[in-house]
Amino acid sequence: MEKFEVHILGCGSAKPTLKHNPSCQVLNVHEQLFMIDCGEGSQLQFRRQRLSFSRLNHIFISHLHGDHCFGLPGLISTLSLLGRTAPLHVYGPQPLEAMLRPILNFHCAGGTFEVVIHEVESKSSQVVLDNKFLTVKTIPLDHRIPCCGWLFEEKAALPHIIREMTDFYGIPHYELSRIKEGADWVTADGDVIANSRLVRPAEPPRRYAYMSDTAYMPTNASLVSGVDLLYHETTFTADCESKAAQTRHSTTRQAAQFALKAGVGRLLIGHYSSSCEDEALMCRQCKEIFPETIHANEGMCVKVGT
Amino acid sequence: MEKFEVHILGCGSAKPTLKHNPSCQVLNVHEQLFMIDCGEGSQLQFRRQRLSFSRLNHIFISHLHGDHCFGLPGLISTLSLLGRTAPLHVYGPQPLEAMLRPILNFHCAGGTFEVVIHEVESKSSQVVLDNKFLTVKTIPLDHRIPCCGWLFEEKAALPHIIREMTDFYGIPHYELSRIKEGADWVTADGDVIANSRLVRPAEPPRRYAYMSDTAYMPTNASLVSGVDLLYHETTFTADCESKAAQTRHSTTRQAAQFALKAGVGRLLIGHYSSSCEDEALMCRQCKEIFPETIHANEGMCVKVGT
Repeated sequence: MEKFEVHILGCGSAKPTLKHNPSCQVLNVHEQLFMIDCGEGSQLQFRRQRLSFSRLNHIFISHLHGDHCFGLPGLISTLSLLGRTAPLHVYGPQPLEAMLRPILNFHCAGGTFEVVIHEVESKSSQVVLDNKFLTVKTIPLDHRIPCCGWLFEEKAALPHIIREMTDFYGIPHYELSRIKEGADWVTADGDVIANSRLVRPAEPPRRYAYMSDTAYMPTNASLVSGVDLLYHETTFTADCESKAAQTRHSTTRQAAQFALKAGVGRLLIGHYSSSCEDEALMCRQCKEIFPETIHANEGMCVKVGT
Repeated sequence: MEKFEVHILGCGSAKPTLKHNPSCQVLNVHEQLFMIDCGEGSQLQFRRQRLSFSRLNHIFISHLHGDHCFGLPGLISTLSLLGRTAPLHVYGPQPLEAMLRPILNFHCAGGTFEVVIHEVESKSSQVVLDNKFLTVKTIPLDHRIPCCGWLFEEKAALPHIIREMTDFYGIPHYELSRIKEGADWVTADGDVIANSRLVRPAEPPRRYAYMSDTAYMPTNASLVSGVDLLYHETTFTADCESKAAQTRHSTTRQAAQFALKAGVGRLLIGHYSSSCEDEALMCRQCKEIFPETIHANEGMCVKVGT
């Protein structure tokens, strides 16, 4: 089965610690890499995990707080030093262009490739990328500044040919793509062999949702309903609910309640506050409500789906 | 003796590697910290070396290539998150203000402290900081954009009181500061005791010179003549002289020749190109010309003077 997995490059929050890097994930979907957030030092974490810069063409920034975007100038400079020629697409809420373009003009003038900046709608969900195997949508989030999460939806694959059946009916190789696309087969005798006898369904398409930084936002449950893997921030432990509300972040309990409400497959937590860094405790608090919880750590790679 | 030592936080060059961080040093002079250059990830290196943010009030940026300044926004944001109130002084060649101020306005608006930006002269040496124990001067460097090094000169300390002598003559405690400042002592009998019999000279003041990034620039030898420790970049090995000239960097041989010409105490090398990372070889090449060479490495702390 094609790859669909998420690498954790950083899962700390704004105040840097020696334990965690600021926010950054890299999603591998069919060997194409998609970066989500890019805190300071992300390019180094990218190298540490032996990921390939040439497979990275899209970067999604949830919002413009430094711990989610201070790694962009360094990463883009490095791509230029490496002689990259393919355009790089950077997505994020306003004012991404006004923030990033002057820095690029200053530090990457005469660069070897184009940086295409896409300012996205962060107040309602919209499709921002749609290619042959993937759709990416924004997820409106509730933070102190414009902020959105990202929903990655794999497209349904074509069904698998049942080789024994196509061989039995002597169907030539050049007809197989039509069969995969749903055609029946008509034998030389005029018998119609139903398509359903020639193929078996492909694996169900997989979905990954990234929700950071945000206050508890139950209205998103229908949008991400049933995703295979949900990353939801847990900046604070359950006892810090008022602090979470005040800073527009979430507690462990809120993330787990959201996962339960949305009926997701598994919950991945992160964006730990430097003031409460006992991730095992945070994970236990989530598991009391939503047992299928895992806590992010740098270097981890989590499969989306089973 | 008061501390005067340099911590190496990063000694790689522009292309990041897993071996080296980009340029950053922290000089400890009498327990006050002075940062020199601030590549991406410097704040993390600063924490790793257990240095204290509250002792850091001055940052010196040699030039505005990303590997020397991309760590500034993150570091300054962190200081703000930590509730700093003391002003922070950042020094560097033009256009430091035009590059840094918009980023600070965007990311650190409403910060808890003032960032004072000092644009300095990079074409000739000038004093940029002068306090009771230290003078800092620029060193003009030859790079592709305006660039300067930094010369840190400790001020001459007052001589030491010879306690046996002052006790012998019954000199009261409140007179000792006058004696330290050079006064003779007149006894009750009217005998004049020469100051030189009451004090012994303080240790000679120490000097540290930082020269990166630069092409070979022998005209600086008189300015840094006899410094206790010279940091000189060695981006390239001796065989890459034309590449060094083209990119306005130095080879090992050139750094060592400069150290010899300037008659420095010790030579510290760094800013290794990612393409020739055999630092032991680089150090050997320097030692052939200037034996007192050491090669920088992250985590190292080098004393200035003996």
